[in-house]
Amino acid sequence: MADSSSSDSEAGPMRDLARRGDLCCINTGTLGFREPIAVSARRIAAQGFGHITPWRQEIDEDHPERAAAAIREQGLSVAAYCRTAYFTADDPTGRRAAIDDNRKALEAAAVLGAPVLVAVVGGLSPHSKDIAGCRQQILDGLAALLPTMQATGVRIALEPLHPVYAADRSLLNTLAQALDWCEQLDPRQEGWFGVAVDAYHVWWDPDLMPSIARAGKRILALHVCDWLCETRDPLQDRGMMGDGLVDLRRLRAAVEAAGYRGPVEVEIFSKLDWWTRNPDEVLATCRERLFRLC
Amino acid sequence: MADSSSSDSEAGPMRDLARRGDLCCINTGTLGFREPIAVSARRIAAQGFGHITPWRQEIDEDHPERAAAAIREQGLSVAAYCRTAYFTADDPTGRRAAIDDNRKALEAAAVLGAPVLVAVVGGLSPHSKDIAGCRQQILDGLAALLPTMQATGVRIALEPLHPVYAADRSLLNTLAQALDWCEQLDPRQEGWFGVAVDAYHVWWDPDLMPSIARAGKRILALHVCDWLCETRDPLQDRGMMGDGLVDLRRLRAAVEAAGYRGPVEVEIFSKLDWWTRNPDEVLATCRERLFRLC
Repeated sequence: MADSSSSDSEAGPMRDLARRGDLCCINTGTLGFREPIAVSARRIAAQGFGHITPWRQEIDEDHPERAAAAIREQGLSVAAYCRTAYFTADDPTGRRAAIDDNRKALEAAAVLGAPVLVAVVGGLSPHSKDIAGCRQQILDGLAALLPTMQATGVRIALEPLHPVYAADRSLLNTLAQALDWCEQLDPRQEGWFGVAVDAYHVWWDPDLMPSIARAGKRILALHVCDWLCETRDPLQDRGMMGDGLVDLRRLRAAVEAAGYRGPVEVEIFSKLDWWTRNPDEVLATCRERLFRLC
Repeated sequence: MADSSSSDSEAGPMRDLARRGDLCCINTGTLGFREPIAVSARRIAAQGFGHITPWRQEIDEDHPERAAAAIREQGLSVAAYCRTAYFTADDPTGRRAAIDDNRKALEAAAVLGAPVLVAVVGGLSPHSKDIAGCRQQILDGLAALLPTMQATGVRIALEPLHPVYAADRSLLNTLAQALDWCEQLDPRQEGWFGVAVDAYHVWWDPDLMPSIARAGKRILALHVCDWLCETRDPLQDRGMMGDGLVDLRRLRAAVEAAGYRGPVEVEIFSKLDWWTRNPDEVLATCRERLFRLC
């Protein structure tokens, strides 16, 4: 079986995912947060996946070592931790609270063994039309986390979100913009700031391929799902890989050509479909689609 | 009253829209296509607007001179004509049919006195995941229209659509991409291809301001409406200017600083709200918001 992960080259041949659950990750958002993290971890491990990315709402951040033990017990590695609180707020108190909350997330990530905290940065603050000002709030908030990142060893993956979320979830909307921010936040390329490439958010981008090549080692995560042609709800009607129109293999080829060798992570928010199904059926479908199509 | 439209400079001071209906345009999409074009034109003129942009579905393209006369009778100028058929199709026959259809649109635009045909270029063709190939189909289709554009004198305004429409309506999604296409289609800058800047589609773009400056005289239309924070339907729940979170005055300032002196056009698709209201109420609201907020 092909396994180029042992290669030391910047960009070896594209990996073969067939029957390689060990290269794959389940983001627990895919299961709809219906069960405790220990149960989800058991299901994910039972299907042969090597990695898990949990969400903060599943973790008791005052005692994250409990969840860490439950995950470790299943033999799973924690790929990343989702996600930051929004950095934008109408007043300085709100912005400081977000930073404090995100420090707590970094500390919990460290206990969980997650090398990366995913950043979803926030949209316009509720009473603002000042898009440039809100973007600066986000940059200031991210910069304020650096000491905690260095203390915990946890990096931040800036996740550009689809522009449909610009108003209320993220003013970081393209990979090129995320890379510009990385350069601003981490000018010496020490690697504290990188990017998460999510198929759902970036597939449409005319600059996608050059941006991926530019990203290189900044790529800290690769998320897959699919964009359904008839999307009923932009937030919670994401498709299973293969059910939509994204060329996922082309995306992974580009990301791996840029040097990425981390897990391929499934993240599907699907209130209308997959979250209504049996979790084991969802996971088995993920596995089959990952092996065959991604 | 300030009126810098007489200035010959590239970018005079920003125009004052207050009580300047003569600088404003109503795109008939704002009224929901509920009445014949002659009725809409009468209502629009009665409220003091100087310009109208009709849609193809309102015009009998075998006899466009009838609509042209009805509009002229109201003293309105036709700012533009909406819009091209999608250029993408699974087979060459479909692509040729789109080109033929768009030639007909150019000819009708000329009869209507519209200097510009707005291009909404199409998403992925129904059975394709080949985003690069579909974009090439669009470029080929646009290039094929040039002889008809030259024969009729009608230019094409490429309208980048918000990325939420990439799957099914438009693979042209940023202003920078539209300008790249203009340079490819019109390398000698003869002006046959330009862009339409629509607040709804571009407000989120981190490259918006530099792209507008780059666009300069390529800007052939400025569309305003608003992005509602709680958008219920990305297609037909656009907001009235002032009801959402877009800084419309900042947008117009940038577009006018780039040299634009054409009409400010209202285009609101709002099945859930404005299309249910009395057309005269809608127009009066447009006027008041244009004068006060745009």
